Amino acid sequence: MIDVARRAGVGLGTVSRVVNGGHGVRDETAQRVRAAIDELGFQRNEVARALRPGKKSTSLALVLGDLTNPFYASIAKASLEVAGQSGFAVVLGSVDEDPEGEKRAIQELVSRQVAGLMIVPDQGDHAFLQGAGVPVVFVDRPATGIDADIVMVDNEGGGRIAAEHLLEQGHQRIAIILAPSYYTIGRRLRGFRRAHRAAGIEIDESLVIQLPEGNAEAAEKATREVMLRADPPTAIFSSTNFLTEGVLRALGELGREPAVVGFDDFRLADMLPTPVTVVASDIAELGRSAARLLLDRASGTDTRPPQRIVLPCALIERGSGERPPDSAGKRSAR
Amino acid sequence: MIDVARRAGVGLGTVSRVVNGGHGVRDETAQRVRAAIDELGFQRNEVARALRPGKKSTSLALVLGDLTNPFYASIAKASLEVAGQSGFAVVLGSVDEDPEGEKRAIQELVSRQVAGLMIVPDQGDHAFLQGAGVPVVFVDRPATGIDADIVMVDNEGGGRIAAEHLLEQGHQRIAIILAPSYYTIGRRLRGFRRAHRAAGIEIDESLVIQLPEGNAEAAEKATREVMLRADPPTAIFSSTNFLTEGVLRALGELGREPAVVGFDDFRLADMLPTPVTVVASDIAELGRSAARLLLDRASGTDTRPPQRIVLPCALIERGSGERPPDSAGKRSAR
Repeated sequence: MIDVARRAGVGLGTVSRVVNGGHGVRDETAQRVRAAIDELGFQRNEVARALRPGKKSTSLALVLGDLTNPFYASIAKASLEVAGQSGFAVVLGSVDEDPEGEKRAIQELVSRQVAGLMIVPDQGDHAFLQGAGVPVVFVDRPATGIDADIVMVDNEGGGRIAAEHLLEQGHQRIAIILAPSYYTIGRRLRGFRRAHRAAGIEIDESLVIQLPEGNAEAAEKATREVMLRADPPTAIFSSTNFLTEGVLRALGELGREPAVVGFDDFRLADMLPTPVTVVASDIAELGRSAARLLLDRASGTDTRPPQRIVLPCALIERGSGERPPDSAGKRSAR
Repeated sequence: MIDVARRAGVGLGTVSRVVNGGHGVRDETAQRVRAAIDELGFQRNEVARALRPGKKSTSLALVLGDLTNPFYASIAKASLEVAGQSGFAVVLGSVDEDPEGEKRAIQELVSRQVAGLMIVPDQGDHAFLQGAGVPVVFVDRPATGIDADIVMVDNEGGGRIAAEHLLEQGHQRIAIILAPSYYTIGRRLRGFRRAHRAAGIEIDESLVIQLPEGNAEAAEKATREVMLRADPPTAIFSSTNFLTEGVLRALGELGREPAVVGFDDFRLADMLPTPVTVVASDIAELGRSAARLLLDRASGTDTRPPQRIVLPCALIERGSGERPPDSAGKRSAR
């Protein structure tokens, strides 16, 4: 700092004021100080700041699943942007479906004195977070064992919209492909059931397909099996973006074309041989809302009891979800 | 720590030994201490550790572009995994084509006392990193103004392979769609030119198309324009994954089918109406290699001069790159 002051030809107090916002410093002087800072590579020591009494940490932690899943990447990107605008860095923990690994990652991050945690929680009890001493915002799904803020999409509404859309076109045998039982998936199934009940259609429970794993391969296998049955479905609702990919792969190989609606939009969905109809929500807004709420909690400006922010889902019709029931067996002429 | 010792019924020294690896502590005792730690939510204070003389930081910083680009997401995921295995957290800075923003993000991260930096550098001078005081590994492309480790793919080789593949099938008018001039893009173009020279084919320079922006929309527009010329190309080589998407979009709208080879593989490339031939490399390995090298630099176990690690590229033939020159004007019968 002394070097900066010397280079800029100002006093230490001026440098300090510029670093801390520039109030009461002439523009020209501030510019000279900033130039000196750039030249000398001067940096505030954030670690020392974190330890100084009364000074708050300026890092947030984000714990989520596989970053190569565009769903998680969108959340990460959006929350990074919002945090960055407030001068906060984001420390990332990415853990893929491993509750123990997730717990280790979270404790590791808390020990780094972050100002708050954003977590897309895995299954398993999160009561251990009660004593974390920092605000926690859950993203996409609530955690058990702790009452905290949660930002999520309207999963039940999305499941209902998807089923309603297929039922309206006369489908009566709709398969639903379910990833292992997350909260979100359970809600999507609930919406699916409600739509059937409202339409007076009984669900063939053998078409409610619970996958052993939540990946494209498992969905592909299950789709092949259900389509090769004597009484295949005329429509399929797949409950996540990766599952939709597996469903489409299987149908492509079999040359079968039941109606398909996927939960969550995905890149290139509109460029596939039959563009894919999806129920979608604003995933980036999930990340933005979570980061905004967490920053307000961390700064103490938001002292409300735990909030539950729910973003809407909407249907995007592209073709695959608009096939009539009698198209299921054959490849359509194009 | 005292609470943990009391709860586990052991001495403070035992708790310390368990926290630091558990050497010389009986399994059963260590288990009891870990249970107490879990119950009490005890955490080592990493910030205090970072400041204690002789103790090293256990964070790495990663600065890269838009996380919703699967290329960057793969690098982030892989480097996080490698860092995590060594007990390092990763602080993320994501900046999209904004050299000033990148510089601010880097200085901000350095001030947090990370043990090292991984950077996918933007254009612009990176000499300011010379005084950062921590090791730097560049990923995907070198930076100017600083001699540091770099992990990258064989861009020139990839460009050459793509052009050779198209030339071998008799294409003589091959367009190349270029993102704004990054190092990588320049190398891909160089490989493209070399293949032409080796084949004795002169390049029509009006088919070397420099986009104003590196996104799908710009590529779509440029492809439409070049395909509507009186003398359109019979093949297109697009220089990044997002550009390939734009090229395919334009061709789909026009109903034209020149041969297409893309640089970088992408999700669903094999499921498009004509599966897409690409030149690809192991992007996750870029991230892993960079993180491994950086950890070795940070720990002092690798004291070699700056290294240049180059990963190979390979052609993945899927259909779009195997169309003959005379297919360019018409939609093939399917």
